[in-house]
Amino acid sequence: MEISRIDDPLDPRVSAFRDIRERDLTGRQGLFVAEGEVVLRVLASPHALCRPRSVLLAENRVAGLAEVLESLPDDVPVHVAGQGVLDSVAGFHLHRGILALGEKPPAQPLEALLAAMGDDAVVVLACGIGNHDNMGGIFRNAAAFGAGAVLLDAQCCDPFYRKAIRVSVGAVLRTPMATGLEAMAAVSGLKAAGFRGLAMTPSAGVTLDQAPRGGRVAIVLGAEGPGLPDSLIAACEPVGIRMSGGFDSLNVATAGAIALHHFARGA
Amino acid sequence: MEISRIDDPLDPRVSAFRDIRERDLTGRQGLFVAEGEVVLRVLASPHALCRPRSVLLAENRVAGLAEVLESLPDDVPVHVAGQGVLDSVAGFHLHRGILALGEKPPAQPLEALLAAMGDDAVVVLACGIGNHDNMGGIFRNAAAFGAGAVLLDAQCCDPFYRKAIRVSVGAVLRTPMATGLEAMAAVSGLKAAGFRGLAMTPSAGVTLDQAPRGGRVAIVLGAEGPGLPDSLIAACEPVGIRMSGGFDSLNVATAGAIALHHFARGA
Repeated sequence: MEISRIDDPLDPRVSAFRDIRERDLTGRQGLFVAEGEVVLRVLASPHALCRPRSVLLAENRVAGLAEVLESLPDDVPVHVAGQGVLDSVAGFHLHRGILALGEKPPAQPLEALLAAMGDDAVVVLACGIGNHDNMGGIFRNAAAFGAGAVLLDAQCCDPFYRKAIRVSVGAVLRTPMATGLEAMAAVSGLKAAGFRGLAMTPSAGVTLDQAPRGGRVAIVLGAEGPGLPDSLIAACEPVGIRMSGGFDSLNVATAGAIALHHFARGA
Repeated sequence: MEISRIDDPLDPRVSAFRDIRERDLTGRQGLFVAEGEVVLRVLASPHALCRPRSVLLAENRVAGLAEVLESLPDDVPVHVAGQGVLDSVAGFHLHRGILALGEKPPAQPLEALLAAMGDDAVVVLACGIGNHDNMGGIFRNAAAFGAGAVLLDAQCCDPFYRKAIRVSVGAVLRTPMATGLEAMAAVSGLKAAGFRGLAMTPSAGVTLDQAPRGGRVAIVLGAEGPGLPDSLIAACEPVGIRMSGGFDSLNVATAGAIALHHFARGA
């Protein structure tokens, strides 16, 4: 492992970390920037499905991370800077003091992803999730319950957005996924692969505790507010979560967690 | 209902809404400021446990809210301002265009709160929750599953903080609560009132699906990261949520939702 010191915020070796917030919004051609120790640990672990490309740390973080840094591949440069230089590079005060640049995993065709799963597998299909907190939460919960994959339709926000990665506590970097799907085609593909499509919707006549476990299951989640479109619900088995009268509904990531707990326990 | 127009950001009639962000951090002696339409609707509804004191709206929001404004008590003044004046009052761009000032409910002694509940009641006792998103999520979930109350120890952040109210979709304003509790004393009080104290902790030998339902149940949640202190776990029945190996844990509000779904379904 080679540690190089950065004293100039304009140093080209850290140009990928420059003005992160603005870049977050524009996307970055197959790369992402993640922050924080937990996320760095995931990225450096054998579970990661993304390659780390470089790391930028505040100098006071190096000693505590020696073991993590050692576990990075040899060709991943580690840059260290004073807090002031780090803040200048990032474009804001980076109190976590840890940034990592990584490569998004190669796109996976849905069929290949599903073919690799066992007979008792649970996946999440998320449609139209526009909020990065919810996206991160969906990945965190999928990982907590051992879901085989998270599938995202083309209307979902980018799971590799910095905040989504952070909220997922790194699960975005270690969970098999397919993105940019057309939701109805994804449901067809899931059915063809033997998955039951369970559309989570408050209006369903069947509640979760009545839905049998086992086999291949896809939990289908729609955007907060509008929920899933009727056509998609009709193509699936609608399932609801029994709630108290008079209150609107659960957060979509929370509803997904309750469904995952039901279908994926001990997977 | 009387609508008055505000043209001067320094108008004393809206002084309570001035520089909200700074005030959020300092507290406000029994008052709170909430934002957004959903929250205003809760505050104006018969379910609210807090009295609204005044409302400040962007002028373009008035027509769409006529019916909600009519349902406010007659002595609650409604102030209307142009977006520019509104932003100057608030101290930032208030794109939701809706602010309400309310009174926190009077403090409830734990014993009185518990005595008012039925034989099959579920409450949440939250200890050391420092994050306002998590606080809001705990209240949202408690309301969704009809929990009888949310109890907070003295180490919890303020549930009436603007963001916590918003994330709770108003549940903070309509859920019976006791705050500032000493956690161990609260567990004793719960037991004395016939509640089983179920400490949610990943290390528990018993999982949720093995925990019997029914009767009076208190779901005890600790802070993300450290979790519940050992002494508190020892004073309760420890219960875990079965998860997949290799991943750390669930968000505390999410864990609470899964426990509420188990214990409070259809309550």
